[in-house]
Amino acid sequence: MATKDKAAAKEKIVQLGKKLVSDIEKGTNPNIEVPVRSLSNISFDTKAKTLVLGSKKAQRFFFNIGHVRKFTQTIEIAKIAKTLLEAGKHASLRDVYYMAKRTIPNTDINVVDEQPETDNAIEDLELITDQSREQLHMNANKMGSVAGKVVIEDKGDLIDWGRLGSGGWSIPSNVEEIEFRKVTGKCVIYMEKAAVWERLHEDKFWDKQNCIIMSSQGQTTRGVRRLLQRLHNEHNLPVYVLTDFDSYGIYIYSVIKFGSIGLAHMAESLAIPDVKFLGITADDINNYDLKKHFIKMKDVDLARLKQIADYDWFKNNKAWQRQFKMMKDFGSKIEIQALSSKGITFISDTYLPEKIRKKDFID
Amino acid sequence: MATKDKAAAKEKIVQLGKKLVSDIEKGTNPNIEVPVRSLSNISFDTKAKTLVLGSKKAQRFFFNIGHVRKFTQTIEIAKIAKTLLEAGKHASLRDVYYMAKRTIPNTDINVVDEQPETDNAIEDLELITDQSREQLHMNANKMGSVAGKVVIEDKGDLIDWGRLGSGGWSIPSNVEEIEFRKVTGKCVIYMEKAAVWERLHEDKFWDKQNCIIMSSQGQTTRGVRRLLQRLHNEHNLPVYVLTDFDSYGIYIYSVIKFGSIGLAHMAESLAIPDVKFLGITADDINNYDLKKHFIKMKDVDLARLKQIADYDWFKNNKAWQRQFKMMKDFGSKIEIQALSSKGITFISDTYLPEKIRKKDFID
Repeated sequence: MATKDKAAAKEKIVQLGKKLVSDIEKGTNPNIEVPVRSLSNISFDTKAKTLVLGSKKAQRFFFNIGHVRKFTQTIEIAKIAKTLLEAGKHASLRDVYYMAKRTIPNTDINVVDEQPETDNAIEDLELITDQSREQLHMNANKMGSVAGKVVIEDKGDLIDWGRLGSGGWSIPSNVEEIEFRKVTGKCVIYMEKAAVWERLHEDKFWDKQNCIIMSSQGQTTRGVRRLLQRLHNEHNLPVYVLTDFDSYGIYIYSVIKFGSIGLAHMAESLAIPDVKFLGITADDINNYDLKKHFIKMKDVDLARLKQIADYDWFKNNKAWQRQFKMMKDFGSKIEIQALSSKGITFISDTYLPEKIRKKDFID
Repeated sequence: MATKDKAAAKEKIVQLGKKLVSDIEKGTNPNIEVPVRSLSNISFDTKAKTLVLGSKKAQRFFFNIGHVRKFTQTIEIAKIAKTLLEAGKHASLRDVYYMAKRTIPNTDINVVDEQPETDNAIEDLELITDQSREQLHMNANKMGSVAGKVVIEDKGDLIDWGRLGSGGWSIPSNVEEIEFRKVTGKCVIYMEKAAVWERLHEDKFWDKQNCIIMSSQGQTTRGVRRLLQRLHNEHNLPVYVLTDFDSYGIYIYSVIKFGSIGLAHMAESLAIPDVKFLGITADDINNYDLKKHFIKMKDVDLARLKQIADYDWFKNNKAWQRQFKMMKDFGSKIEIQALSSKGITFISDTYLPEKIRKKDFID
C-alpha cells in the first residue's frame, strides 16, 4: 500500500512538471491552477457534514510580478516533495522551510523568507496534487499517546498497544504507513488531556471496557486525527471525544468531527462526521453535582462561545444549542479533572461506564 | 523495589501524622518544619555541580493566623498522598488540586482556591518527607518519546524501545517503577524538538550509532529528566543534549545539567552534572556555514542571554562564556533544523557522527 501511494504521489508531481514544460514549449506563460482557500470559498456541506472547499480557482502565472513569488515557491516545494518521496524520507514543516530557503543566484532574493510561505505552498501543493502533505512526506509535530486493544505493524515491527506499560505507544506525526493487524477494541475514546489518559490507563479502563484510549495535549495533531479516522473508517469503530466543558474543548470536538477552517480542503481525509461527544456536558454538571468547581468564564471565553454557537454546523443543532445556552447561563466552565473531587477513579469506575451504558452522547 | 519505595513514602507521611498527634497530646501548638525554598536559600554547589537548597528552615504553626492556611493545605496533601499510596494509584497535579478543594464544614472557606496552592504544598511535602512528588504518586504532565537499544519492564510488560515502529515509546509522567532489563546502547542523546527526534529515528540513527534517542517538546518534563538520570546513574550512559543555538536551548541544557531554580530541592534526583552539550554551537555555525539561516535575536532574547551568562554555574565556565560572547556578537540565533538546508539526512549522516567522533562537546 505504502509503495503504491508513494508512486501515485510522485506521479502527480511529475504531471505538474510536465504541464509546465509543455507551457514553456508552447510559448505560453507557465501557469498553475490553485483552488482558493479563503473563507469565501469554504462552506459547510450539510450532506457530508464536513467543511468543504468550493469550486473557485485561481490561476497563478510565472510571468506576472504579483504571482511569480508564490509560483516559484510552489514549484520549489514540489521539487522537495519529489526528493523526499524518491529518498523514502519524511521532513518536518520546519525542515521543508530550511530546504526551500536559498538565495537565487546573482540576486539577493531568497526563494522564501519565513515558514508561513512554505506552509502555504505545501497546502497549495496538497490541492494541486490531491495528495495530503503526509502523502507528500511532509509532517507536522508529533504528539500524543495511544493504548488499547489493537495490534499494528509499522516499519517491520509488530506493536501491541495493550502491552506497552504505563507509557503507551507514542503517536508519530505520520500514520499513513501503519497497518492494523488485529483490532479487537470496540470503540475509541479520544481525550484532550494527557493527564486524563494516564488516569484511564492506570485504571486499565481500555481493558475493562474493551476499547482504545488516545490523547494528545490541547489541540489535536493531524497524526492523531488521521489515526482516529483510519480506525473509524477501516474498522467501523465509533469514536467518542472527552473534553472540558468550555468553548476550547467543544472546538476540539468540532475540528475532529467537521474539520477545521484552515484545513477545509483536507476535511475528507481528516474529518469524522460520526464522532460523538462523550463529555463533560452541562447535564453532567447538574447530575454529578460539579457546580462548586465552576471556573468563571472571561469575556474572551464568552465571545468564543457565541462564535462557536453561530457556526453553520452548530446553529441548527438543538442538542448543542441547549448546551451552549446552559454554558452561557452558568457563565462558567468545568474541567474534566473536577471529577477527581469524587475520588481518584470516579471517572474510570463510574462516570464513563455510566455514560457509555446509557449512550449519553451528544451528536 | 516499587513496593519498598511505596512503604517508605507512606511511613514518612505516618511519621508526620504521629508528630502532630504528639504535639496535640503534649498541649503544644502543632507545627511542621519546612525548608525555605526562596532564592535566598538556593546556591550553586561547586563540588556537586548542582543547585542546592541551603539549611534555612521555617516553622509553620496551626494556631497562627498567618500560618494556618498553608499548614492545613500541607496536611491535606499528606492525606491525599497517603490515600494514593494505599490505593496504588497516581494522580496528576490538577487531580490533586480538585481532591484538595473542599469547603470546610459550617464555613465558606475552601481548603484551597487555586492550583498553585496545592502545587506549593506538594513541594513542601517533598521536602518534609524527603520523597519526590513522583514517589508520593503525584505526577506532572506526560510528554516525549524514546527509541533505541534498551529493553524495559513496566507494569508486567516487556518493552523493547527498538521495536516500536515510527512512534517509539511514549514516556509516562512517572518513571520510578520501570525496570531496565537490557541496556546495550552506549549513550543517550536528548533533543528539545520532537521533529528532530523523528528525523533521527527515520534515519535509524540510534541503530547505526548504537544509542538511545529521547525527546519531549520544548521544556523537559520531569519524567524525561528522571529517565535520563536513571539511565545515566544506573547504567553509566553518557547523556548528550541537542538544542537550538539560543538562550532557550541553552537553558534547557542548564536545567538538565544543574537543576532548575524552582526545583532546587529536587536537584539530587533530577540533575545530571555530567551531561554534555552536543549542539548547535557558535563554532558549528562557522564550520557548517549556517550564517545565512541566522534569526535576529530580539531584546528579550539578549536580556535572557545576559541573565544566563551571569548564572553562578556558567559565570566561571570559559567554554560557555566564549559561546555566549559569540552569540551576542552574532546578535542572532540558529535552529537545529537549519542543518536540513544541507540535505534532509545531513544531521544523521554527517553532523552528529562527526561531532561524536571528534568528542566535540561543551561541558
